[in-house]
Amino acid sequence: MTSPVGLHRVVEPAGVLPQAAWRLDASPEIAPNEVRIRVERLNLDAASFRQLWEKHGGDGDAVRAEVLEIVSARGKMQNPVTGSGGMLIGTVEEAGRRSPLGLRVGQRVATLVSLTLTPLTILDGLARWDGRSEQVPCDGYAILFARSIAAVLPADLDPQLSLAVLDVCGAPALTARVVSRYVVERERAGDPTPVRVAVIGGAGKSGSLSLAAARRAGAARTVGVVPVVAERDALTAVGLADAVALADARDPVALSTAVTTALEAPADVTVVCVDVPGCEHGAVLATADGGTVVFFSMATSFAAAALGAEGLAADVTMLVGNGYVPGHAEFALGLLRSEPGVRALFEARLAAD
Amino acid sequence: MTSPVGLHRVVEPAGVLPQAAWRLDASPEIAPNEVRIRVERLNLDAASFRQLWEKHGGDGDAVRAEVLEIVSARGKMQNPVTGSGGMLIGTVEEAGRRSPLGLRVGQRVATLVSLTLTPLTILDGLARWDGRSEQVPCDGYAILFARSIAAVLPADLDPQLSLAVLDVCGAPALTARVVSRYVVERERAGDPTPVRVAVIGGAGKSGSLSLAAARRAGAARTVGVVPVVAERDALTAVGLADAVALADARDPVALSTAVTTALEAPADVTVVCVDVPGCEHGAVLATADGGTVVFFSMATSFAAAALGAEGLAADVTMLVGNGYVPGHAEFALGLLRSEPGVRALFEARLAAD
Repeated sequence: MTSPVGLHRVVEPAGVLPQAAWRLDASPEIAPNEVRIRVERLNLDAASFRQLWEKHGGDGDAVRAEVLEIVSARGKMQNPVTGSGGMLIGTVEEAGRRSPLGLRVGQRVATLVSLTLTPLTILDGLARWDGRSEQVPCDGYAILFARSIAAVLPADLDPQLSLAVLDVCGAPALTARVVSRYVVERERAGDPTPVRVAVIGGAGKSGSLSLAAARRAGAARTVGVVPVVAERDALTAVGLADAVALADARDPVALSTAVTTALEAPADVTVVCVDVPGCEHGAVLATADGGTVVFFSMATSFAAAALGAEGLAADVTMLVGNGYVPGHAEFALGLLRSEPGVRALFEARLAAD
Repeated sequence: MTSPVGLHRVVEPAGVLPQAAWRLDASPEIAPNEVRIRVERLNLDAASFRQLWEKHGGDGDAVRAEVLEIVSARGKMQNPVTGSGGMLIGTVEEAGRRSPLGLRVGQRVATLVSLTLTPLTILDGLARWDGRSEQVPCDGYAILFARSIAAVLPADLDPQLSLAVLDVCGAPALTARVVSRYVVERERAGDPTPVRVAVIGGAGKSGSLSLAAARRAGAARTVGVVPVVAERDALTAVGLADAVALADARDPVALSTAVTTALEAPADVTVVCVDVPGCEHGAVLATADGGTVVFFSMATSFAAAALGAEGLAADVTMLVGNGYVPGHAEFALGLLRSEPGVRALFEARLAAD
């Protein structure tokens, strides 16, 4: 039986899982439990795109050349510096008879597992991409294993909009789970203290969804923290947060002051959604004793978080943001449909790309 | 008023917290809310010492020279590659009149905040250290800020034994907190399923304490996973775990098979205490849906954990092991005093150093 987690596609080093592999076998022939997708678009992880963009000083041709080189060398799109990938959209071309994913040929799908573990072959040299945006038009093949996740794209939404939401759909689901735990515990204890939530990077994709999710889960007061005036105005206009604060998340003192002022106390739950390094200490300092920090940014440093909390004698729970929570795709698409503020930010973002 | 978190000691870059700083001001004059410690011993973080040891191919003189160079350049002992530090033992030499730590001149203490944020000056060139062990005899000065933690060394225990326990005392405290949450939730739900706990690296310092903590918190079945026969025999002999399994934690399939076999099911809580990179995927794969992985190793990769869980469609909660939990020092020293198995492993380890 072929490995449900794709071990048979690992070329080197031997014995690791596909995400940890340096190189995968991306040949198009599928095993009975696999599915082959005809790719139409890649969506690069924000941290990965930013690293490539900065490395090449905004030269789109050089960014495109490096993405082609990575995929050709590794059989997958995994940025060797950030370690991150992204996701893709495409059409089911062939579904093995023993695949448990329930997909049918011709269905248009988005993959909800990372590109870092998805065998990928690019056929068109990315000729339709200018290297200047995370959204990459692409003709090629990708392979899904038995234990993968793919969402059939909803008919009522623009596929690019669905893709942008699905790319970050783990964040609102986990935020809702964490916030509702605080709400339930306070209710159970008869404690009337409001549950306070701060979302760092609140105007971005995962940030705006997380703000909406926190409110839905029962947060009594929320603040979205953003780095620039344009984002402050945009987030204020859509009304997704009770307060919007301007602060550099890399400056621990400025960040914690901004959050504590806006919420009139430190946050019970702080959600980090900004893709720049160095936000760990500020997030810890902005969080109340007994609170939780959820790190969704791939730029998070494990050591900085662990040692930062210890060094500040901060009794906070720190979560590695897991991109998978059961029902995450439906929950995020539901927020997009029901929250005009979320939809407005996503559509503005896509229009600007 | 001088900063309680030591901002006034940061030399470069400006505006960051001491742990994130490249260089600290380690001058011996203290502010009214600081404490100066006369250092007698450093205890390097295991991941840091291993990196230095491997880089210099086991040349103790070269390891010593690099430690001296780091402390001289940075004003603190923070390994530039691993980002980690360690802790120290010493005697209170001067306590500022506004220090809230409650320390008195002459008390023998261990610092429970990391060396990565502790201003440090070495005076003796580490002349008494051969560079071949994590325990570093040292004459020098260190500075504690207002928001620091230091434990007065207990009179009934060998100081080296106390230091070894205090160095990892966050692990058993957090393990106990996480395990007891599962025990309480199952009781509340009337669910008789036993709570299963796996500790990867169960024969080590944080591992053996975590096994004892898990059992005390109500774990019904525990397994300690170790990489070599000698550790298997040692851990089996002291009886701290219900089962002991031999597996390479970097091999996800081998690790998850070992855990699942020993516990007769995946673990509800998996605690990672081994200081080698690449254990994230195996830990996730060894953990049940709805379970929790606690990462205590500084060699943990944030991206590997986040993307690994997503790629495996694993609904697991992943915690960044925070070295600070209120009461952690007393709890860990209590385990050492009351669990002969823990004490035996610690004493054997110190004797071998």
